[in-house]
Amino acid sequence: MEIRTDLAIENRELYKEEKNEEVPGVEVKKEEGQDYTVTKVNILNHVGAKIMCKPEGLYITIEVPKLKNTDQELREEISKLLAKEIKGMGYNDKHTKTLIVGLGNWKVTPDSLGPKVIDRVMVTRQFFIAYNKDEDETVANVSALSPGVMGLTGIETGEIIKGIVEKTKPDLVVAVDALASRKMERVNTTIQITDTGINPGSGLGNRRIGLNKDYLGVPVLAVGVPTVVDAATMISDTMDMIIGSMKDKAIVGGEFYSLLDDISREEKYHLIKEVLEPYMPNVVVTPKEIDLIIDDLSIIIANGLNIALHHGIDLKDVNRYIR
Amino acid sequence: MEIRTDLAIENRELYKEEKNEEVPGVEVKKEEGQDYTVTKVNILNHVGAKIMCKPEGLYITIEVPKLKNTDQELREEISKLLAKEIKGMGYNDKHTKTLIVGLGNWKVTPDSLGPKVIDRVMVTRQFFIAYNKDEDETVANVSALSPGVMGLTGIETGEIIKGIVEKTKPDLVVAVDALASRKMERVNTTIQITDTGINPGSGLGNRRIGLNKDYLGVPVLAVGVPTVVDAATMISDTMDMIIGSMKDKAIVGGEFYSLLDDISREEKYHLIKEVLEPYMPNVVVTPKEIDLIIDDLSIIIANGLNIALHHGIDLKDVNRYIR
Amino acid sequence: MEIRTDLAIENRELYKEEKNEEVPGVEVKKEEGQDYTVTKVNILNHVGAKIMCKPEGLYITIEVPKLKNTDQELREEISKLLAKEIKGMGYNDKHTKTLIVGLGNWKVTPDSLGPKVIDRVMVTRQFFIAYNKDEDETVANVSALSPGVMGLTGIETGEIIKGIVEKTKPDLVVAVDALASRKMERVNTTIQITDTGINPGSGLGNRRIGLNKDYLGVPVLAVGVPTVVDAATMISDTMDMIIGSMKDKAIVGGEFYSLLDDISREEKYHLIKEVLEPYMPNVVVTPKEIDLIIDDLSIIIANGLNIALHHGIDLKDVNRYIR
Amino acid sequence: MEIRTDLAIENRELYKEEKNEEVPGVEVKKEEGQDYTVTKVNILNHVGAKIMCKPEGLYITIEVPKLKNTDQELREEISKLLAKEIKGMGYNDKHTKTLIVGLGNWKVTPDSLGPKVIDRVMVTRQFFIAYNKDEDETVANVSALSPGVMGLTGIETGEIIKGIVEKTKPDLVVAVDALASRKMERVNTTIQITDTGINPGSGLGNRRIGLNKDYLGVPVLAVGVPTVVDAATMISDTMDMIIGSMKDKAIVGGEFYSLLDDISREEKYHLIKEVLEPYMPNVVVTPKEIDLIIDDLSIIIANGLNIALHHGIDLKDVNRYIR
Repeated sequence: MEIRTDLAIENRELYKEEKNEEVPGVEVKKEEGQDYTVTKVNILNHVGAKIMCKPEGLYITIEVPKLKNTDQELREEISKLLAKEIKGMGYNDKHTKTLIVGLGNWKVTPDSLGPKVIDRVMVTRQFFIAYNKDEDETVANVSALSPGVMGLTGIETGEIIKGIVEKTKPDLVVAVDALASRKMERVNTTIQITDTGINPGSGLGNRRIGLNKDYLGVPVLAVGVPTVVDAATMISDTMDMIIGSMKDKAIVGGEFYSLLDDISREEKYHLIKEVLEPYMPNVVVTPKEIDLIIDDLSIIIANGLNIALHHGIDLKDVNRYIR
Repeated sequence: MEIRTDLAIENRELYKEEKNEEVPGVEVKKEEGQDYTVTKVNILNHVGAKIMCKPEGLYITIEVPKLKNTDQELREEISKLLAKEIKGMGYNDKHTKTLIVGLGNWKVTPDSLGPKVIDRVMVTRQFFIAYNKDEDETVANVSALSPGVMGLTGIETGEIIKGIVEKTKPDLVVAVDALASRKMERVNTTIQITDTGINPGSGLGNRRIGLNKDYLGVPVLAVGVPTVVDAATMISDTMDMIIGSMKDKAIVGGEFYSLLDDISREEKYHLIKEVLEPYMPNVVVTPKEIDLIIDDLSIIIANGLNIALHHGIDLKDVNRYIR
Repeated sequence: MEIRTDLAIENRELYKEEKNEEVPGVEVKKEEGQDYTVTKVNILNHVGAKIMCKPEGLYITIEVPKLKNTDQELREEISKLLAKEIKGMGYNDKHTKTLIVGLGNWKVTPDSLGPKVIDRVMVTRQFFIAYNKDEDETVANVSALSPGVMGLTGIETGEIIKGIVEKTKPDLVVAVDALASRKMERVNTTIQITDTGINPGSGLGNRRIGLNKDYLGVPVLAVGVPTVVDAATMISDTMDMIIGSMKDKAIVGGEFYSLLDDISREEKYHLIKEVLEPYMPNVVVTPKEIDLIIDDLSIIIANGLNIALHHGIDLKDVNRYIR
Repeated sequence: MEIRTDLAIENRELYKEEKNEEVPGVEVKKEEGQDYTVTKVNILNHVGAKIMCKPEGLYITIEVPKLKNTDQELREEISKLLAKEIKGMGYNDKHTKTLIVGLGNWKVTPDSLGPKVIDRVMVTRQFFIAYNKDEDETVANVSALSPGVMGLTGIETGEIIKGIVEKTKPDLVVAVDALASRKMERVNTTIQITDTGINPGSGLGNRRIGLNKDYLGVPVLAVGVPTVVDAATMISDTMDMIIGSMKDKAIVGGEFYSLLDDISREEKYHLIKEVLEPYMPNVVVTPKEIDLIIDDLSIIIANGLNIALHHGIDLKDVNRYIR
């Protein structure tokens, strides 16, 4: 019964909880703002990659505990921060042709973040073609698409994107996806940006083919927000907590203590199964108003992308642009 | 940290788990079909009502474990069964004027069952008025409305409905609502019908004003399906299960056993709070594809109501009618 | 084959085209802004009312030819202008309890303006109730509802609203509705405000019961935007134009001239019927992107209402509030 | 001011109205059913192609005047008829891998037919891949996609489809699109099937790149339904009708007659412009309830495709499958 998380900071947290040391092969930097924390986890080599179960590369996490409330000023600040971090990664300038890809299923609310962001990004490639231009004072060349999920199209998302990349030859792909977190407190309050793209098994949709530089031939930035906690993960963590809290009371080495240690993975698994049947692998924990929250998040992310990708666009323009 | 459930059979189950006896003042009958169980819980007096935390009256629960799969034949069977049970309650015949009310918030997926059912019921009152008729060979006089929730309208649902009841004078109100269950296995597989209406605190929306005969002056049937488990309830139940499983291994009366008994309500509450913050009271557990499931359920319920209320309509007509 | 219009300025225009004089019993004032014209048509008595086919009262029309383009500044200016005109009518102050009603069918795009405005207005009545307040520094007491159309609910819109008015006792009702214009140039560029409420036969939905002070017992302001031209009206006008253009060339009193005069109402009617069958009475002319235009208009109207009704709210707050 | 139509039978009609003879290089066959007419227009050579402004190939038109009403039996009959005609063209059998493409803009109701059909077709390619199968007893290998329009994605529809065709190598592409008709009576009552694919300028979206065998390298069937009449076309036709009706009364060769002939194209154009400004090129005439009609049509078309493409699927299965 593995812990299910798409956040690098949570993989690191899990390691540190167990080993009480920093993950080897991983460099971590933190910056604190008034309302947010930015954590940059850099997986430097294959040792770090193996422990973290994630490819080498940079994972920037923006945590904004208050993001769930509807404070417009903070939201705008986070859009700007997201734009700054994306630009800071150095993959785009005003000549960069970018394809934004909204992953996920628009018919499944917690998985609809990607498609909803696509609805709100500024798409300009058609004007570059119509006016036969190579650059523009205000905007860069951006196209955008929500390919749908394999259950709807019969086609792997990766195949669709690769076909389009080959035809339209962007310099950069930005993939937006809904993620799973291990902790409720990170749900809808955390944005992860990585230059390693989308990798097999990640995201709510459990992608089979990765969307990364190896596969697509151009750099792939992935921007994700955890929108759910996997229910099995939550129950497993809850059980660990209660066992831990009993251990605190028991005498180390005593009978009860070892009894507590005895609760096997298998026992836990059966318990989780019992609680979650008949839906087991597909049960998620979300705030009730997830529909509204996803709407809000998609505006924050789309604003961030609009500012990051278009050199002459700031938040004022963006607010006007987005319906 | 109370167990949150809107199902009478679960209130009964909780009592029986603790006391190992039937609830006094309550009569229970069970019928088994091949793919379903119908349980009729009749709360006969105020003793039963107090223990069950529910008003006196009849609670019919249809449990269909396979309902989550898309077997069209079974769905149609359940629509017919639902119609049969509603008609069996004896509140309507071909002269009955019925107002169907879809409770819940159409912007919050798990709470949107009521409004989605309203979208699919056959509404006929306008024809009775246009042709100045009192009865018809095929259909009864039915109107339908989704009043929205107080957060959207600023008006208590009960006030809106009472205003309309006073103007249009139906003989019967049928209220459809999304419920909370205690157990995942009942989510989206269970239909509860009751002649006690909707009572304060029930449903996902935690209604403040009840919709019942006392308030509206006409009988109110409530039809509900649990679409979520409250996350706090699930975690609380999970903790009880793991403690129970440890107790099974410990020696009764031994030190460890009493340690397990010692885990106080307060400790549990703090644990739940820690797991669920910052959303605490509004976190729900649902299958990921809840959007699609609610769509399917709304067809089953609407079909059942169409057959139950209109004397000359059967499933074939109904399939043709609903888009 | 009558000309179908819900705009008072068009009824006046028709009279003036024919009679070449101002409508008796009607007073007209015009104000020109840089990008808009405000025309105030005041029907003073029953003579004016009869000619205009509209009840006595004030009809304010804001015409903004450029409104169809997406210039955010102009839209905000129009929201403020709408607010100013509504407040200028003198029906509300900070103590006024207002019920906003969104008329129309949310399943029929050109008729969905009312419901979409309701989605975006600030609703506050629930807080006045929760905190047991009579007034507030910033906001007035506002509730809002889209009752649906009779085809969906089986209940006359008027009955639903009257029931709710009796229960919640607002001081003012504001009804928002989609209208029909006679001319394409006014579609989606014109806002009409009137203190005569909604009258039978008006709006895209052809309401049967009026929503006005007589019926509801409180003043009713109606805010409407023409979203279509009735196709029969357009064809009829087109025919008149071509006949007119031929008359200009013919010799007055000549054979051909009289031939043109000879084209009877009946002939015209048959021609229109031939062109529009099989849909005849339900064919409308709209810009192709009506879905997006209605979305934009609903924001402009909702913003205007939010500023008009809430004394401490300005456009900045409103932009932040609306999703 | 050209007549705008995407229907081959209307191009033919226009020629015949003027010349009173069959189009040279074109073969026409008609079959009459009780409730429908099937017209097969075969453009045999470049002479026919030039006159018809359409590529050589077969154009099958199913006209069903009663289709606008909600008679379920007739709809099912038309789905079966559509399936028969598609199969009869001989492009697919149980081994054929088909990619269905839904053209058009899901945000513009009359242009949303393609995407709505995609929502309802049976997609199976993922199972063929998962089970590594080449054929199946019941279903053929079908994938499906709505690429969006260039205004939303920045990418020509053709480029997206070509990229996907190159990656997934289907044997056949079926493109579904909303069309423009010249006559209201054909709107939403007519289905055109052609083996010439989608050609530049056709459809509501006025595609720039064609989707045909030349471009994609595999046969392309196009299935379309006219959902609008272009407003300029309707007005132009109306003017011709009224002039025609006056000519009938005038003496041939007389003064008035030649006056009528005198009404120049330019005059007509200015009149149309005056009527339709400010929207001119984007004004369409549709029945008011176009939203509901498109929903119904998408089911009929999707059903037809499901039966045509999957050898072991009939209407009963299909009704169960589609939500």
